[in-house]
Amino acid sequence: MQIETPSATKTFADRVAEAVEHKGSQLVVGLDPRLDLLPVELRGDAHVARTAAADAVARFCGGIVDAVAPYAVAVKPQLAFFEALGADGLRAFEQTCEYARSAGLLVIADAKRGDIGSTARAYAAAYLEGETPVADALTVNPYLGRDSLDPFFGACRRHGGGVFCLVKTSNEGGGDVQDVRLSDGGLLWQHVARLVAEWGEDLIGEHGLSSVGAVVGATHPRAISEARRLLPRSILLLPGVGAQGASPGDVARAFTSGPASALVAASRSITYGFRSSGEDWRTGASQEAARLKTEIWAASGW
Amino acid sequence: MQIETPSATKTFADRVAEAVEHKGSQLVVGLDPRLDLLPVELRGDAHVARTAAADAVARFCGGIVDAVAPYAVAVKPQLAFFEALGADGLRAFEQTCEYARSAGLLVIADAKRGDIGSTARAYAAAYLEGETPVADALTVNPYLGRDSLDPFFGACRRHGGGVFCLVKTSNEGGGDVQDVRLSDGGLLWQHVARLVAEWGEDLIGEHGLSSVGAVVGATHPRAISEARRLLPRSILLLPGVGAQGASPGDVARAFTSGPASALVAASRSITYGFRSSGEDWRTGASQEAARLKTEIWAASGW
Repeated sequence: MQIETPSATKTFADRVAEAVEHKGSQLVVGLDPRLDLLPVELRGDAHVARTAAADAVARFCGGIVDAVAPYAVAVKPQLAFFEALGADGLRAFEQTCEYARSAGLLVIADAKRGDIGSTARAYAAAYLEGETPVADALTVNPYLGRDSLDPFFGACRRHGGGVFCLVKTSNEGGGDVQDVRLSDGGLLWQHVARLVAEWGEDLIGEHGLSSVGAVVGATHPRAISEARRLLPRSILLLPGVGAQGASPGDVARAFTSGPASALVAASRSITYGFRSSGEDWRTGASQEAARLKTEIWAASGW
Repeated sequence: MQIETPSATKTFADRVAEAVEHKGSQLVVGLDPRLDLLPVELRGDAHVARTAAADAVARFCGGIVDAVAPYAVAVKPQLAFFEALGADGLRAFEQTCEYARSAGLLVIADAKRGDIGSTARAYAAAYLEGETPVADALTVNPYLGRDSLDPFFGACRRHGGGVFCLVKTSNEGGGDVQDVRLSDGGLLWQHVARLVAEWGEDLIGEHGLSSVGAVVGATHPRAISEARRLLPRSILLLPGVGAQGASPGDVARAFTSGPASALVAASRSITYGFRSSGEDWRTGASQEAARLKTEIWAASGW
């Protein structure tokens, strides 16, 4: 009789690589549920009671998950919009994550957390640990350095999770800190990119990609090429396509490390497209996700 | 007949200045509720059910609030430890904040949030806005630059709240990014300190202090003098006293801009002192808070 040894936990990067291949998609749908933008049919008493508001948010996110599941590899719920509804909102967040995972989507919790070690351990426990972790990956902030992120890396190693570390963000003001010129002639974000590459070396999976990814705004096409060069093994998470102004063509150069070496996030153009098109909100989300999926795949050159 | 115009909302910095003067204290008690460190009498079923765990956390924080209220000007609940218990944990956080405010303490939510503008607006709404804001102030991260913090500054202006922006953190790894040498010869955290000073100029209250404060680790005594020079109007929030190794004497130079120009945060040495002393947990917290309050006040030279 052969004794089966349980296989090691599959890395987050490998799970991304397999999902990208399986679906022929590198699309991530951002979930930024804002009460004032929800379809009228869902609002009900949402303007008067937080519980009703959180229910409306959970129903909206569930509907978007159903609409985009065939076209996206992941959803990226933005915690701020759930926290704005307090404890009820966090319950809606947990429901949304669970529902998305049951629909076969990876969940990237957009939390941008970063704190000293003992606190970071609590954040890692909150999102990436436990029998069924709430999320598959978490966005994190590098300002507090390596020891503030080690607890996340440990959680990734043990539970097959991932992190995406902010490197060069999509907003204009990001330059105030990220574009500061260093004594070596480079910019701060390039220094951070090198740190992220180093931090991710221990977490490289069978597909050659690390579970320590990097956030690079799609609104900076030139920075994308440079980030790709500095982070050859990291999955780049590229927000900013759609409402923030970037196009699928702007992100083409992110994919030179393989079809799963970048994920493109679009939020408002998918979830709130119905507000300008007048279509049913689910139909609108579905069509825009399908369109973006195809355009990004073509731009990626794979 | 004279028409009364409602007086402008009092700024956070003015509220801090008045609390410091009234209590003769610059002590902030950090609330980092970790289940495994709670007094046995509170644990109950906390290890099996999240609701019970959250109840235990709320009771513990309430007890600490009662114990330290005569000696501290503020509490600083660390969101990570509440988020680790999900929606139930966030409910315990809300209860803790409300209870602390009713006990006459200011509440500094230690969240270290930072995100692009539309998301930052949601975080500002979550913590600093509404009829009764959850917290009086919030810690924030500067990596995404000014436009990511503007929504917080706006909330502070309208609702009398405050922010403490990370500048030089107490952990060792903070140097990976914060101590990078710039082309002007300075360090990155000094550049960030100058930005914070500039961002806070519009929010200076009647006591001459800004509601845009800065976090500087008490574990770096030399950085404190330099931060004080770069940020003459900011309230410095100094964590790291006690369990992290800094002493009240290390922070003396932070107070040269006035008795309320710095707040000293201690967490574990107050809340978990009972674990080594064997005293009742409330008595232990009360005594250690009283001792630290007096030592810090003496060190401040006011």
